[in-house]
Amino acid sequence: MGSYQNGVVDGERSATPVDKGVDFAQYFCTYAFLFHQKEMLSDRVRMDAYFNSIFQNKHHFQGKTVLDVGAGSGILAIWSAQAGARKVYAVEATKMSEHARALVRANKLEDVVEVIEGSMEEVTLPEKVDVIISEWMGYFLLRESMFDSVICARDRWLKPMGIMYPSHARMWVAPIRSGSVDKKINDYEDAMDDWYHFTNETKNKYGVDMSVLKKSFSEEQRKYYLQTSLWSNLHPHQVIGTAALVKEIDCLTVTVNDILEVRSNLSSSITLENTRLCGFGGWFDVHFRGRKEDPAQQEIELTTAPSIDNGTHWGQQVYSTVLLS
Amino acid sequence: MGSYQNGVVDGERSATPVDKGVDFAQYFCTYAFLFHQKEMLSDRVRMDAYFNSIFQNKHHFQGKTVLDVGAGSGILAIWSAQAGARKVYAVEATKMSEHARALVRANKLEDVVEVIEGSMEEVTLPEKVDVIISEWMGYFLLRESMFDSVICARDRWLKPMGIMYPSHARMWVAPIRSGSVDKKINDYEDAMDDWYHFTNETKNKYGVDMSVLKKSFSEEQRKYYLQTSLWSNLHPHQVIGTAALVKEIDCLTVTVNDILEVRSNLSSSITLENTRLCGFGGWFDVHFRGRKEDPAQQEIELTTAPSIDNGTHWGQQVYSTVLLS
Repeated sequence: MGSYQNGVVDGERSATPVDKGVDFAQYFCTYAFLFHQKEMLSDRVRMDAYFNSIFQNKHHFQGKTVLDVGAGSGILAIWSAQAGARKVYAVEATKMSEHARALVRANKLEDVVEVIEGSMEEVTLPEKVDVIISEWMGYFLLRESMFDSVICARDRWLKPMGIMYPSHARMWVAPIRSGSVDKKINDYEDAMDDWYHFTNETKNKYGVDMSVLKKSFSEEQRKYYLQTSLWSNLHPHQVIGTAALVKEIDCLTVTVNDILEVRSNLSSSITLENTRLCGFGGWFDVHFRGRKEDPAQQEIELTTAPSIDNGTHWGQQVYSTVLLS
Repeated sequence: MGSYQNGVVDGERSATPVDKGVDFAQYFCTYAFLFHQKEMLSDRVRMDAYFNSIFQNKHHFQGKTVLDVGAGSGILAIWSAQAGARKVYAVEATKMSEHARALVRANKLEDVVEVIEGSMEEVTLPEKVDVIISEWMGYFLLRESMFDSVICARDRWLKPMGIMYPSHARMWVAPIRSGSVDKKINDYEDAMDDWYHFTNETKNKYGVDMSVLKKSFSEEQRKYYLQTSLWSNLHPHQVIGTAALVKEIDCLTVTVNDILEVRSNLSSSITLENTRLCGFGGWFDVHFRGRKEDPAQQEIELTTAPSIDNGTHWGQQVYSTVLLS
């Protein structure tokens, strides 16, 4: 049988809980590609935020030791070194680490930046560090659960007065209007119509009654079309009410348990007249504030809220109101 | 970092040789979906060929024991039972086996068809079988390498005079014309132009020189755009010369070694005037002939050659002439 991945940019198929090995396999595969790294390196808002957070807070880096978790191409490690770090450990699980090593050499920083290929949970560093820097955020902050590795790194390798870059993270949800939600409902209904014709044909032409599978098929399609968030690049005008804060994270103290689930009672006021509530948009922001004992001189914010000019590759996640039914 | 699979229907990205565990993970994931099974069950040419091969050769099934390798929804197992088999073992590695079990029951064949969840390499059957039936063919026949499991099944479980369904397979290559090849070359050149701008920007704006990665990026893109086959549904008019046979397989005798590689000296004559050679199209056919000692009464062919009315979900694979440069 021929098998090809449908062009799925939005949402993601997930039948039974995916075996962790499977999920990791699919996850790490993407990050081994330069093409993918380049996409992230071309996200100007992302790049500006990290660049500014480091170079406008050199006091956190000069003469210090730094750990870059999930270093990828090594860009954060390189900037940390350029900002004056004494030593930088760049840990990267995929073969991208080889490219990171080449970049470090090409930028004459091999005396400062040490690239280590391996998972954060397994590698051993020669010392604890003053700063942990990482760009770990997935869609709606926690998709990919890379933050688990950052927490692990912090618990194993951060000095008692060490600093996290970023230091804080928040998740937001706001009511939105969006044509894409209607489309998904139509797609689901089309899929079920097609199922009806399919089972008729299979019975009449091929003598096999497949109707017993209708419920399972319907659940699978419902999950795919309606109960999976949709990646979107929302226009601010699509946000029709106040944004509600659904989670706040202090990167110095958060535990893996804290991020296993996101549960929140939220309320929001619709602020646009003559509009239709189609669903909810979710996004996040992170902040670079240092810590109470050693604050940033310049606090930097990286936000992925709907924006005309300052969109990011994260977009926002759209959840249809059908989810609630 | 947000990570989403680009909508890749054609070809496939592959950097370093993919870890087998990774490849299996991605492979089995797709087959656990009813949506995907339905796609294959809706391929009329595929369904007709297997249906006819069984029901026009009942003598091979009546009172016999059958093994369905990679049973999926169980359709072949069900047909085998309906054609009179005494006992059918339907082996399926994914949770799709649960749906197969439900289908067997709904079609009142639970006394004949036993669904076994597991991999062919690991399961144990109570007896050897008279017939091994399987729909194992991937793109250009051997993509997915499921045939390894069929060969394993044959060597472990087929009786000495047992029969393979299908019995034979062939791979064909023909010269073609296709606009998609030009598009891929353009896409590759655009990607390299964009790399140039990207490295400039990263150097000027962010102080990091990424030019050392150009060669690796170029190889990765070249491989992706130009050295990966493209799924296509060719029109017969796009075939501009004679088809050359590049591999012949006797399913009774072929070994795993025989299919590790496909090597062939081929020659073809261009039969269309005033045309342009853009690349080569590859496809396959399989036959249901039984065996010398116990031939089919009605030989059936399933071909995936370019066709106006009888296309299949396999399409054909297109290799650009740039591959040769």
